[in-house]
Amino acid sequence: MKKVTVHAFAGVGNLVCGFDVIGMALHAPYDVIDMELTEEPGIRIKHTDAFGLPENPGENIIGICLQAMTKAVNKPIGFKVTVQKNIKPGSGLGSSSASCAGAVVAANALLDNRFSKNELVEFALAGEIVASGGKHADNIAPAIFGGITIARPTDPVDIISLPVPSDLFVAIVHPQIEVKTADARKILPTEISMKTGVNQWANVAGLVAGIYTDDKNLIGRSLQDHVAEPYRSKLIPGYDAVIKKSMEAGALGGGISGSGPTMFMLCETEAIAAAVETCMQEVYQELKIDFKTYVTSINPEGVKIVSSE
Amino acid sequence: MKKVTVHAFAGVGNLVCGFDVIGMALHAPYDVIDMELTEEPGIRIKHTDAFGLPENPGENIIGICLQAMTKAVNKPIGFKVTVQKNIKPGSGLGSSSASCAGAVVAANALLDNRFSKNELVEFALAGEIVASGGKHADNIAPAIFGGITIARPTDPVDIISLPVPSDLFVAIVHPQIEVKTADARKILPTEISMKTGVNQWANVAGLVAGIYTDDKNLIGRSLQDHVAEPYRSKLIPGYDAVIKKSMEAGALGGGISGSGPTMFMLCETEAIAAAVETCMQEVYQELKIDFKTYVTSINPEGVKIVSSE
Repeated sequence: MKKVTVHAFAGVGNLVCGFDVIGMALHAPYDVIDMELTEEPGIRIKHTDAFGLPENPGENIIGICLQAMTKAVNKPIGFKVTVQKNIKPGSGLGSSSASCAGAVVAANALLDNRFSKNELVEFALAGEIVASGGKHADNIAPAIFGGITIARPTDPVDIISLPVPSDLFVAIVHPQIEVKTADARKILPTEISMKTGVNQWANVAGLVAGIYTDDKNLIGRSLQDHVAEPYRSKLIPGYDAVIKKSMEAGALGGGISGSGPTMFMLCETEAIAAAVETCMQEVYQELKIDFKTYVTSINPEGVKIVSSE
Repeated sequence: MKKVTVHAFAGVGNLVCGFDVIGMALHAPYDVIDMELTEEPGIRIKHTDAFGLPENPGENIIGICLQAMTKAVNKPIGFKVTVQKNIKPGSGLGSSSASCAGAVVAANALLDNRFSKNELVEFALAGEIVASGGKHADNIAPAIFGGITIARPTDPVDIISLPVPSDLFVAIVHPQIEVKTADARKILPTEISMKTGVNQWANVAGLVAGIYTDDKNLIGRSLQDHVAEPYRSKLIPGYDAVIKKSMEAGALGGGISGSGPTMFMLCETEAIAAAVETCMQEVYQELKIDFKTYVTSINPEGVKIVSSE
C-alpha cells in the first residue's frame, strides 16, 4: 500500500459529566485525509480547506503526530498529506482529534499496521496536546477506537470501549462563534468542592451504568456536569435556551460538546432529534447568530479507510 | 406477621474511588435484629451486645429510623426491638447502616411490605445521617438492595444496582482502634484540585465498566482513591504495609472500608484471599495491635428475613 484515503470523524469530548475522560465518535461531520508514503524523508502537508491552518509540519498537528510516528519507526520515510477539513477548528466537535487520529491511522495503514490502536493514541496525543493545551484522550480515543470510550489519564492512557446504546440519535448545533480550547480551559476553576466532586463521579457512575444496561432514562439523568458547564456555558450565547427547549422537545440530556461552542443533545428517536434540531435553529435565528446543525448518531467505528492503492 | 428476625450484613462503603457513592454488601459479619409489632405505640429497643449503645429510641439510630417510618404510617403502632450487634460501631464496616437497614426492612415486613426498597432507603438515611454526619447512601443502599450499588446523591437518592462480578473474594482486616465516621470526615479537605477530580471519576468510570464486563484487571487498576485515602490512611497504623503486602500476595486492589480503620482487598480466588488475610494478620501482630480478619464475599442480597411468625 502506497496511498490511502481516510475519513476522520467528529466526536463529542467531555461527555458532560465525563469531563476530560469520556467521549464518543459521531458519523458526521468528517475530515478527509489522503496520505502517500514516500521514500524521500520529510512530511509535506497541504490543506484543501479554507481554515488557514499552517502547512509547516512543525506547526501543523498532523505534522507533529507524524513526526512522533516516524521517530518510532526509525528508518527514513516520508509522508505526503492532503487534508480536507470539514470539522471547523475550535468548534468543540473534536476537530484537532480528527486531524491527529486520521493522520496516525492513515500512516499506520501505510506502515502495514505495525502499531496497535493504543500506540496510535499516544502518537495522536502528541498533536492533541499542542492543540488543546492538555493531555486528555477523551476525543482522541473515540476518534481511533470508535463508539464511546473511557480514557483513564494514566501513562500510557488506559482506554476502555463501552457498548454503544441502541437507537440513540444526536442533535448538534454549532453556533458560528469561536471558543478556543485553551481559552475554555483557562476559564475553569483549578479547584472544586468535594461535594461537587461527589456529584460528578456519581453522575459518571450512573452514565457508565446506563450505557451498559442501555437504560436511556439513566443516561439522561446522569448527563449533568457540575465542573465545567457552569463556567463554559457563559461563553455560549443561547446555551440556556437550547438546553431548556431541547429537553421540552423530548431530548434525554446533553450539554456542551468538548469545550464548546457546539452543543449536543442525545435523543431516543430520529424524530425527536429532528424536533430538537428545529429548536436549536430557532434559538440562533432569534439571536441572529449563524449556526450549523446536524442530526447524526454514534459511530461505532473510528477513523475509516475508504480507499487504498 | 407479628414477629420477625433479620440478619443485617456488614458492607464496604466509599468503595475506594467511589467515595460517598459506591458500596457493596458482604456476607459477614452481620447483626441480628428481632422485631415485634405492638399495638401499643412507642419504640422499645434492647441491645444484647456489649457495645454500650443508647437504648433510648430518640438517641438510638434504629429508634430514629423507626420513628420516621411510624410517622409515615400515620396510625398508632409500636415496635419492640432486640438487637445483637456483631458489627462493631466505628469499624468502617457499615455498622450504623446495618442497624438502620435491618430495622427498616424488619419493620416493613411487619407492615406487609407497604414501602418500596427506595422508600426504605430514605427512612434508613434518617438514622444514618445522625451516625455519620452526612446524607450518603453508599452503605445504606447495598445494605438494603444487596450486591454493589451506585447511590446518586439526589433527593430522593437514585440507586442503581450493579451486577456482582463472579468469583470475587474479600479479605478484611479490622484493627481494633476506633475511627469515628464524623472524625474521619473532618480530616478530609473541602476542596480538591480539578486534576484530582478527573483522576477520580476516570477511576469510577473504569470501576463501573470493570464490574459490568467482569474484567477483574480493570476493577483492580481502577481501585485508586485520590480524595480520601491519602488523608484517612494516616489514621490507620499499618495501612501502607497492608496494601503493599496484599498486592504482593495477589490481591486485585482495595483500600479503606467506609471511613476506616477496616481495610478490604478484593481477590480473584479464595486461596488468594486467605493468603492476603495472613499478610494482614502479620502486619498487626508485628504492630502489636489487636485485630479481626474475615474472608468473605459480596452478598447479592440485602437484609435477610430469617424467621417470622
